[in-house]
This record gives sequence, structure tokens and C-alpha cells, in this order.
Amino acid sequence: MKDYYEVVVVGGGIIGHAVSYQLNKNNVTTLVVEKQQSGRKATKAAAGMLGVHTENSNANEFYKLCQSSRDMYQELNWELYELTSIDIQLASGGMVELAFHEQEKQAIELKRQAFPNLEWVDQRQLKAWYPMLGKEAIAGIYMETDGHVEPSRVCEAFKQGAIAKGGKVKEDCHVWNINHVGKTFHLDTDEGLITAERVVIATGAESGRWFTAMGLVNPMIPVKGECLSIISSGIQLKQTLFCKDFYLVPKRDGRYVIGATSERYNQSSYVSVGGIESLLTHFNTIFPSFRDARIDSFLTGVRPGTEDGIPVIGEHPYLPGLYYATGHYRNGVLLAPATAQLIGDLIMNQSQKAIGTLVSPQRLAMVNS
Amino acid sequence: MKDYYEVVVVGGGIIGHAVSYQLNKNNVTTLVVEKQQSGRKATKAAAGMLGVHTENSNANEFYKLCQSSRDMYQELNWELYELTSIDIQLASGGMVELAFHEQEKQAIELKRQAFPNLEWVDQRQLKAWYPMLGKEAIAGIYMETDGHVEPSRVCEAFKQGAIAKGGKVKEDCHVWNINHVGKTFHLDTDEGLITAERVVIATGAESGRWFTAMGLVNPMIPVKGECLSIISSGIQLKQTLFCKDFYLVPKRDGRYVIGATSERYNQSSYVSVGGIESLLTHFNTIFPSFRDARIDSFLTGVRPGTEDGIPVIGEHPYLPGLYYATGHYRNGVLLAPATAQLIGDLIMNQSQKAIGTLVSPQRLAMVNS
Amino acid sequence: MKDYYEVVVVGGGIIGHAVSYQLNKNNVTTLVVEKQQSGRKATKAAAGMLGVHTENSNANEFYKLCQSSRDMYQELNWELYELTSIDIQLASGGMVELAFHEQEKQAIELKRQAFPNLEWVDQRQLKAWYPMLGKEAIAGIYMETDGHVEPSRVCEAFKQGAIAKGGKVKEDCHVWNINHVGKTFHLDTDEGLITAERVVIATGAESGRWFTAMGLVNPMIPVKGECLSIISSGIQLKQTLFCKDFYLVPKRDGRYVIGATSERYNQSSYVSVGGIESLLTHFNTIFPSFRDARIDSFLTGVRPGTEDGIPVIGEHPYLPGLYYATGHYRNGVLLAPATAQLIGDLIMNQSQKAIGTLVSPQRLAMVNS
Amino acid sequence: MKDYYEVVVVGGGIIGHAVSYQLNKNNVTTLVVEKQQSGRKATKAAAGMLGVHTENSNANEFYKLCQSSRDMYQELNWELYELTSIDIQLASGGMVELAFHEQEKQAIELKRQAFPNLEWVDQRQLKAWYPMLGKEAIAGIYMETDGHVEPSRVCEAFKQGAIAKGGKVKEDCHVWNINHVGKTFHLDTDEGLITAERVVIATGAESGRWFTAMGLVNPMIPVKGECLSIISSGIQLKQTLFCKDFYLVPKRDGRYVIGATSERYNQSSYVSVGGIESLLTHFNTIFPSFRDARIDSFLTGVRPGTEDGIPVIGEHPYLPGLYYATGHYRNGVLLAPATAQLIGDLIMNQSQKAIGTLVSPQRLAMVNS
Repeated sequence: MKDYYEVVVVGGGIIGHAVSYQLNKNNVTTLVVEKQQSGRKATKAAAGMLGVHTENSNANEFYKLCQSSRDMYQELNWELYELTSIDIQLASGGMVELAFHEQEKQAIELKRQAFPNLEWVDQRQLKAWYPMLGKEAIAGIYMETDGHVEPSRVCEAFKQGAIAKGGKVKEDCHVWNINHVGKTFHLDTDEGLITAERVVIATGAESGRWFTAMGLVNPMIPVKGECLSIISSGIQLKQTLFCKDFYLVPKRDGRYVIGATSERYNQSSYVSVGGIESLLTHFNTIFPSFRDARIDSFLTGVRPGTEDGIPVIGEHPYLPGLYYATGHYRNGVLLAPATAQLIGDLIMNQSQKAIGTLVSPQRLAMVNS
Repeated sequence: MKDYYEVVVVGGGIIGHAVSYQLNKNNVTTLVVEKQQSGRKATKAAAGMLGVHTENSNANEFYKLCQSSRDMYQELNWELYELTSIDIQLASGGMVELAFHEQEKQAIELKRQAFPNLEWVDQRQLKAWYPMLGKEAIAGIYMETDGHVEPSRVCEAFKQGAIAKGGKVKEDCHVWNINHVGKTFHLDTDEGLITAERVVIATGAESGRWFTAMGLVNPMIPVKGECLSIISSGIQLKQTLFCKDFYLVPKRDGRYVIGATSERYNQSSYVSVGGIESLLTHFNTIFPSFRDARIDSFLTGVRPGTEDGIPVIGEHPYLPGLYYATGHYRNGVLLAPATAQLIGDLIMNQSQKAIGTLVSPQRLAMVNS
Repeated sequence: MKDYYEVVVVGGGIIGHAVSYQLNKNNVTTLVVEKQQSGRKATKAAAGMLGVHTENSNANEFYKLCQSSRDMYQELNWELYELTSIDIQLASGGMVELAFHEQEKQAIELKRQAFPNLEWVDQRQLKAWYPMLGKEAIAGIYMETDGHVEPSRVCEAFKQGAIAKGGKVKEDCHVWNINHVGKTFHLDTDEGLITAERVVIATGAESGRWFTAMGLVNPMIPVKGECLSIISSGIQLKQTLFCKDFYLVPKRDGRYVIGATSERYNQSSYVSVGGIESLLTHFNTIFPSFRDARIDSFLTGVRPGTEDGIPVIGEHPYLPGLYYATGHYRNGVLLAPATAQLIGDLIMNQSQKAIGTLVSPQRLAMVNS
Repeated sequence: MKDYYEVVVVGGGIIGHAVSYQLNKNNVTTLVVEKQQSGRKATKAAAGMLGVHTENSNANEFYKLCQSSRDMYQELNWELYELTSIDIQLASGGMVELAFHEQEKQAIELKRQAFPNLEWVDQRQLKAWYPMLGKEAIAGIYMETDGHVEPSRVCEAFKQGAIAKGGKVKEDCHVWNINHVGKTFHLDTDEGLITAERVVIATGAESGRWFTAMGLVNPMIPVKGECLSIISSGIQLKQTLFCKDFYLVPKRDGRYVIGATSERYNQSSYVSVGGIESLLTHFNTIFPSFRDARIDSFLTGVRPGTEDGIPVIGEHPYLPGLYYATGHYRNGVLLAPATAQLIGDLIMNQSQKAIGTLVSPQRLAMVNS
């Protein structure tokens, strides 16, 4: 394996490959080093919702980041298809957030005020749209512009797109240490020493070590998530349904993905009795008439949560050349394009301004640094 | 395919292959015709309990049949291992039936009186044995002699044992019609005409047609069952636990099989949302501290129930040479050895007395026949 | 289950559901009866190629049928997506047929003459396009208009589309007999008697019985097929490659489907040692540099071949109301739309002329009928 | 998680859990830290052969180690069953090594001379035993005392046995660094700091780092292995067949495991086109009449090879309290019991003599240490 690269990206999830694709597209050659197979952790467990308005309650800076990232998928959809023949399954059926209780209704009313582009849906309308609901939904908001993609395909398309542009990928290779030596970085890996001008940390829920080892506060909180997919010709939903503790995403292949559990500090890698039971119980409460639906498969992965709920995207406060692209919690799929662009701008233009201070690693500098 | 056989067994489940093994062992050569792959229906869905005392409430004729069948596994265990190198995983850890309510307690008290060999287990003892229970068990009975086997292995061992003794198996071949022509039977199959001196119907939940088509009352009630298996190093149970609507079987490979749903007239062949949810809910109620157990796999199949709850084993009332070995509901694994012996005696000795009237097809003769 | 229907379609593969969709779209309500789960046999084993020019060597009537059917997918693609949210993954990257030997070259030269729309690709060009080939391709033809779809999705989309239009589906229900009683048909099924005005036989490789039982010559030849899918970021092909005994289809999710074995009269339902070995050997000969590709999954199914290689589509010669839509061998995916239209026209317009005599069941009438 | 332990075992494969079981059995409490799930790497890929005589060509010290370890399974078989209800499927059908060429014949002749307990089998005898062989075997040796176990069960039984005796297991937890601080070791893990009196390195193919980081020569050579299992009622073999580049193990559940590929320095974690093709080609050459056998599943894992082909078992040359139990290449299942005993003796008796110098880490001390 050639042992010198302009940029080495550590972590082969959707974020790492998105960054690699963006760089190679701009003639910066990269190596992505993944300790197992690409896209197997948080990426694999994601339902792929582009939930700009389910993940935000007001039009702040983070909202704008989500929105711009979602919009980038329109172009990426065709660009990646042309380049790799992989269809990322961008769907724009829109999403509907439901309120079952007065309190939930107030919450979506506030959201409606915050986002004029959302459409209010009243009780009568919801009854007409969703006669099958087991609990009466008293109000809802329709988010026309939000949709979803197929996460494992997006990851594979970014990966193959980067390769088509000259990028390299090394899987089943673990990175043990990253040392800053002069102007370069030395990575101590399962396959020996790799040298790089710049390093991007995109190791998701396992990024903790790369903060502490680099003298920063560790913001990572691993959050286990479990989903399951079912098949039922009876449901026939077009829009993604979203409510407290539960969502149902109609996928392009006829499956419905039901999500998602959320367990902080649980890093186990298997599907659990408790997790699946809670998902099925939610489903049966809301869709009592589909107990006969067929179970298709289960998904689980550990999501990279952070203390302040904001991802960490940008350059290390005082280690030039070391970048972070992690901490996306359950928004990694949604934010992959914007993250790749932010890191790309930083590396190519060196424009610090290019990046919002919101997500900057600056906030993790030790007080006494 | 040779087109003439002494005996053709229709159906390649555990019953069909047990009968075939018994006949070939006694130099009666057979052909088993299975429409798909062997052991995929009720056999595959079974947990393999040899629950002589969970399936009976008093020492009647059916109980004696169950008991003698269970005892035959002791010898079969070694006999089949010698012949096929397949270990059927006979386990004799015993079973414990638990009562959580006064009513359930009374039921097991009666059972205890009916079966002096069962051992009473009081509340204190149960608490000591099973500190992990989420519901307090107020009483239980210990059934030392009952255990379990691995159904798919028993089926494969019977199948390979029969082949080793000269038997034949034809899979992926459907039987459309069975016509009685002179002294022989003509079977109209996917692969053409097969002729046999005698025919044994062992088609489990799909046997209905072979009663109606042969002028008998159709006793079959298909009953869908679903199970799941989990892995948890915390549980560490040796005995099978059995209670109303729920059981937990510790398998020899470290898995625990949780069963079972029971849905009359449901013949669907997939794992359902409702079925798995009810099993997981039961499990979480009784073992609240193991929500973290790993889900290993799911099992489902349609069991051959009957109107009177008694299997149908014996010769057709007025079609000599046509035999039934079906209707075992959830006792097919337990009763396979005894069923094979009963059919074998009938075919080889022609001794009608050899078979109990309890299970005889006589009871299905049309009144006006 | 309501027991009377205008049309009952026997068989829930891609053909059966396509016919059902076409009829319900035109307000003819149907019931599809499938003995297991929909789309599990030939449909599941198909790679989904729309190989109009790989399946034909000259522009005859069968070619026109293939071509018109392929073209219908353009509209169906959007129509089904609108109706069911299922994306059938229509791809139009085109196909390239390769010749490795002089004889194969002559064959594609003739094909080129037969189809002016095909583009000749010379040895130099092929070398440039496919530097990775292990055998030198001496010539090829580029079939720009041919592509592929995802068979299981097409089947599910037809099924759900029909349901959305009022159609019904009954799975896990076997049809034992079809009797013509007066002006209607009585179907004897696992779930009792179903009555229908018209019946469409779409039982694929298992259709044989429905010819013999209806007094026709049985044209069916079951042909087992096995495929496998692999993942390799190195291959990076856009077009489907096709050559003698082998093809490679780049699917929209990043997988490559390698096909296909073809074994007449083998109806076994599992993946075999010999089948997979021959596919892998072919692959390694043509793509020696990708031995490291990851194996993703295996597919197998039995295809409905016919004596004369032509499907059987149309009304029974002398049993009005009974229709056949079967015998598509490995062209069921390609021909599903045209088949549905032909049967639809027959049932709705009663226009015998509407159907080509080529595929008509007339040819199966007993000489002495 | 309690953060202080007498012994922490790094690595939850069959070796790590065997060591943990041995220690807990002797009242030394341990924690096993596994970065993923237990028994998923080399353990999962193993066929489980106890090939004392296939792995040795003369009765040297390594042979004695293999032999004593195999013999320990006799007692472990019952001991683990009593404790955990897990049946490790110890089989003693014996093994036969076949020679197809003169050169191979000479090799087994030498082996026969080296091991008087082996039985010579001549060409005629082999023809009678194995009429189905596609290549004529010209000679063989019968190794009556060698058998096999089910590796994943052995691993699970050791794990649950240790837990039953008070041991702890932490899965999905990666160890980043091990620091020697005073008389104890500090382990830097995904879940924070763990302190231990002693540490055992049992990280299989990933052990390299724990040699270099501890100032020793790194002897590890990762060797990828792939196997597959098939089902065929025709084969009916009792003994394991072994020959150059190929073996066939009849498992207790009716499957046959075919192995194994051996690729040095390949650490990829998936099943490859090339690997499976070579296994199937070998199988078809030796068993041409079973091309119709059903493929059941695939196994792959990376085995911990070493430069000198000898495992590394013992205490670090100059870091008292740090032990190695790795480098077992494809003999980890065979050597697990002896390895556990050796490490146990070292830790409990501090008897250096207890361990053979053959496997001692002494040989890895830097020349200038």
C-alpha cells in the first residue's frame, strides 16, 4: 500500500466517504481507512430520513445547515448515478409529523410558526388520510420538502465515486495512533505506518479517543439505535410518518422502516429483545390493524451523539491539518453533503470563515489551552 | 425415478421421515415425496419439547402414547447417531411448570395428583431457583423425565437413516392426486406417475385435502405458530420453564427458544409483527432483567391441529393400504417415534389391534358410510 | 374471504401480478391466489435484464413482442412509482454482448445485420472499455436501448398497485383443482371453494398440470437457474455485459448480479455446489483480477421453459374464460407488461385478434380435439 | 463496570474464554474484554478439527501439547455440559488422511512411522470405504483418536462457564492501550480506565500491536481462512477426510464443513469469490457426484499465524504480570484447553517450569534487550 497521501480519512461511514468524494472530485487524492467494512455502523442502522423539520424546532444556524445539506442531495442524486450507476433512492414524498396529545399539538404549532413553509393538517384531514391509525391524531404538520435516501447506498455511492475519481479505500484496517511529526501525520495502523499531510477524523461513535488523545474535551456520547423493516401491502403510505418516539418510513422497495430506539452509552452491536419489543409495541399501538405485517429485517448501530447535540466539523484548534467530521448523532445521512463541503472548503481554501463557528471543534479546547 | 414402491410416504416432515425410517429399518423400502425441502414446516417451527406432562392433565391413553414415544428417544438417540453421525441433541434437564395465579396453581395441583411422579415445588423453592422472575411464581411442578430434542436434526437423522437403509427421498415434488387403482395406488406428481402398494399421508397441516378427497370428514385445523431464539449469558437456566402462553427452552448450543404463538386457521408462512411482539412482551414480563438479551433468529410454521385435539394415525376405514400419520398439532416431535411404530406395525403385521382406537381414522368415517 | 370474483389469477409471480394490475387498472377486479409468498420462484431468481437483443437473433414477431414490452416499462416506471412509491429501478445503461471466438463473432455479426439499431464495437474499442477482461474480446455489439429492472420490486409494485386499485391477494393458499361448472369456474383451494367468471393460469414452472388437466398438450419444461450477487468497488461497469453462458448486471444498489445456470428438468429449490462453482469459474475466467470481490448473496428459482421456446399467452382453445400466461422461460420480467396487456385485451375486449397467434395456446390442442 | 480485576483477558475468542474459564474455576476472578462479540473471528471460521496428527509430522514437543489438549476435551465435554447445558459436540469418528500421489503417499508413510498408533489404509480398502471419490486415493492413514468439536459452542460454553463461576465479560469494548503502572496494569478502553493485577493478551490475529507496544519482536502473520458448509444426504461419511489443500468434516447436525483457504496477510472480513471458487473446485474434483449438494453457509475469519508456526503462550520476558496466549494459527480450537492450563499454572503457581520453553514469548525478546 502506497504509504503517503495528501489526506487520510479515518472512518469509512457515510461521513468519511462523503468527505473523500468531495476531495477527490476536486483533485485532492485521499485514502479512507476503515477498521471493518464500510457503512456498517450508524450508517447501516439509519432509516435515511432527511428530516430537516423533525430535527429542528426553529430556523437557527443548525437548521440552515440541515436545509442546505438536504438540498445538495438533489444534485448528488444524479451526479452519483452518472458516476457510479448507484441510485441513492432519493424520495420526496414529504413527511407528516403527528400530534396525539394537546402538548404535542402545542409543540408542532410552535414549529409551524417557526417554519412558514410547513402546512398545517387538521384532525379531520388526518382522519381522511390515515383512517388506519389506532390512536386519534389531533393535529399534524406536513413537511413537503423533506424526504429520505437509502443510507447504505449513499455510502457505497460516495465510496465508489471517490474511487472513480482516484481515491483509495483500505478496509479491515484499524488505526491505533495518529502522531503529529513535523508538518505531517504518521498513522500507526494494522498494516503499518501511513503518512499524510492532513487527517480527517470521521470515526462516528468511536471518535472519543481522537479528542482525548489530541488534547481536547471529549464530547462524544454513543447512542445505540435499533430499527426494523416490515412488509405489508395493506399500509400503502406515501409520506413518512413521524411522532414522538416513533417513525415509519416507506422505502422505495416496498419495505417500511420503523424506528428508532435511542439508548445513550449503550455500544452493543446486536439486536436486543427490549429494543425490538418497544418498536413493535409502538407500531401496534399506532397501527393496530397491521399485526399481520411481515417482519423483513432488523438494523442496529451506535450513533455518534455529542454533549451539546451539535456535530463537530472543522479543524483542530491548535493542530493544523487535523480535522473532525463526527458527532452527527442521528443526522449523519442528512448532514453528510454539507459536512463534506465544509471540510472540503477548509482543506482546499484554508478558509476558516467558510465554516460556521457553531460546529467548530474550537468549543472543545481545554479551558487552560 | 423408479416408479414403483412398496410404500410411498407423502410429506417429508419429522413424521414422514420417522415412518420411512421405521419401515426401511424393517426392510420395507419406501419413497418419501416432499413438495419442498424436508422439515421446513411445523418441524422447523418446533422448539422440540418432549412435554409429556405439559401436554396432558391426566394419565389417559393419549398420555401413555406420549410417554412411550418420549422413552423411545433414549434408544433412537444412539441408534441414529451410530447410523448417521447426527446428534439429535436429546436433553433431559427436566421441565418446570409454573403457576403465577391461584387458578393456575389449582390446575397444576390436579396435575400433580394425576401424575405421582411429578415433584411439587413451593414458592420459597422457586424463589431460590429463579430469583430473576419478574412475576412471583406461587407454585410449580418439576417434571424430571421430560426433556427436548432438536427437531430439524431429528428430521434429518430419520431422513438420512432411512436412506442408509435403502429408502429414497424425492424433494421439490408435489403430489396432486392419489387414485386407488385395483390393488395399488397411482400418485399423480410434478414428476409424473408413481405407483405404490401402500400410501402414508404425513402432510401435516396440509392434510385436509387427503381426507375430503378420500371420502372422510376433514378434521384438520391449521394452527400457525411462531417462536424466537435468543442468546443471553445471564439467564443460565438448565430446565425448560413452562407456563400459560409461554415457555423457555434452553437449547444445547446456548440459545434459548421462546414460544409459542398459536393462531387457528392462519396458514401464512412468514414471521409477523404481532406474533413476535406478543412473545417478546411475555418474555419481558417474566424476565424483566434480560431486555438486553440478543435476538438470534425467528421460527414459524403451521401446525396440524385437529377438531378433537387427537392426531390421526392408522388405516383408512374402507381404503385398505392408505394410512394417515398426521394431526399431531404441537406434539409431532414428541409423537414421531410412537407414530412410526404404530404405522410400521400396521403395515408389517397388518394387526389392526396394534393400534389404539383413540387415534384411529375410523372416527372420521362419514355417518352414512 | 369473499368467494366470487370476476377474474381469479392463479400464481403470484411477476406475470400474475402484472395481469392483475392491468385488469384492476381497467376496473376488472381480481383475486391473485399464490400458494406461498409472492415473487419467490422464477421472479426472485431473475437478474431483471430487459435483453430484447440478447434473447432474439432476428426481427421476428417474438422480437416485436419483447421490444414493445420493454418499452412499456418506461411508462410503468413512473406510473407504479406514483401509485405505490415503489421504484422498480429501471436502468438504461445499455448492454454489450461480447464475442471471444470467431464463431461467436459471426453470430453477433448476423445479429448486427438483423438489428440495424445495434452498434458494432471493435476489438480496440473493447480493450479500451474493458481493460480488466481476462479473455480478449474480439468483437461486441452495443445495445443502447436495453436495460434492466429489479424483478422483486416490479412484482411487489404490480401487486400493491393492483391492491390500490381494488384487487385482492391471497397468499399461502394452494389451488388443487379448477372445475368448469356452467358458465363459471370453481377453484378448490386450501381455504375452500372460490368461484370465478374467468381464470388466468400464471403458475410459471408449475403450470404443467393446468395443461394436462384441461385436455391440452403439456409444453412445460422446468429449468432451474442460479445466480449470485457480488460487491466490488473495483469493477465499475455501467453496461450489462453479456456473453455465451455468462452475464454480469450492474445493479442500482452497487451489487453485480452474475448469471445464470440453466438446468432443464431440475426443480430443486436450493443453491447447489455445482451451480455456484460454474458461475464463479466463469467469473474468474473473464474477470481474473476480481477474485477478491465480496460475495453478497445467492438466488435460485425454477423458470417456466416450453418445448418450442415460446410462452403460452391466450385463451384455452375450447374452454372459454380460461386463460394462460406462462412459459416465459427467462423472459418473464421482460415480457410481463406485454403479457398483461394481451390478457387484458382478451378479457376486456374479447378480441381474439388482439393476440398474436405466435403465443396462442391453440398450438397445444390435442390433434384429435 | 467495576474497574479493578485480578486478571483482565484481552480478546473474547475461544482462547480468551478458555483462559478465563480455567482461572475462574480456580477462584481467580477475571474480566474478558472483547471489542466486538465473542467468538466471531478465527473461532467462527474454524471447522473444529482436533487434528493432532494432521497438524504434526513427528512426535515432538508440539505434538505432545496438541495431544494433551485434545485429551482434555473428553473431560471438558461433560464438565461444560453440566455447568452450562451447552453440548460442545465432541465427535470421535476419527480422521482419514488421503494420499492421491506418490509424493503424498511417502509423506503419510513417514507420518505412519512417526506415529505407531496410526493405522495404514491401502488402496483397495479406501476404494471400498470411499467409492464416491473422483480421484483414486492410493493410500491413507486412519487416525482413530482424532475428532472434532463445534468451535462456536466451545467458545460460548467457556464464556458461560466462566460467568457461572463468577467471571465477567465486556463485549463491544475496544482496548486502546495497556500501561504498566507500578505493580498494576492500566487498560485504556472505550469504556474508560480498567485496572488489573495481570493481563492476558488473547487477541488472535490482531495481537501484533501488543508485541511491538511491549518491546518485543512481532511474530504475528494474519492468515485469512474461508470455509463453507453443505448438506447432502448422499455423502454419508463418518470420518473426517483430510488431504492436501482440502478437508471435509461431517458435523453432528448433518452438515459437512469444507475447508479451508489460507491467505497470508489478508485480513479482509468477508467471503470472497476466489476463496469459495477454490473450495468448490476442490470439492467437485474429489466428490464429482455431489455437485447437487445444497450450499448451507459460509464461514470466514483471520487466523493468528506466527513466523515460526508455533503459538506464543507464556509470560512477557521482562514485564511480569503480562501474559500472551495467541499465535495458534489454525490450531486454536485444538490447543485452547492446554493453553488455558499453561496460563492458569503460570498465574496461579508462578511456576515458570510449568510451561514449555517451546511456546514461550522468551524467543521474541529483542536481541539487545
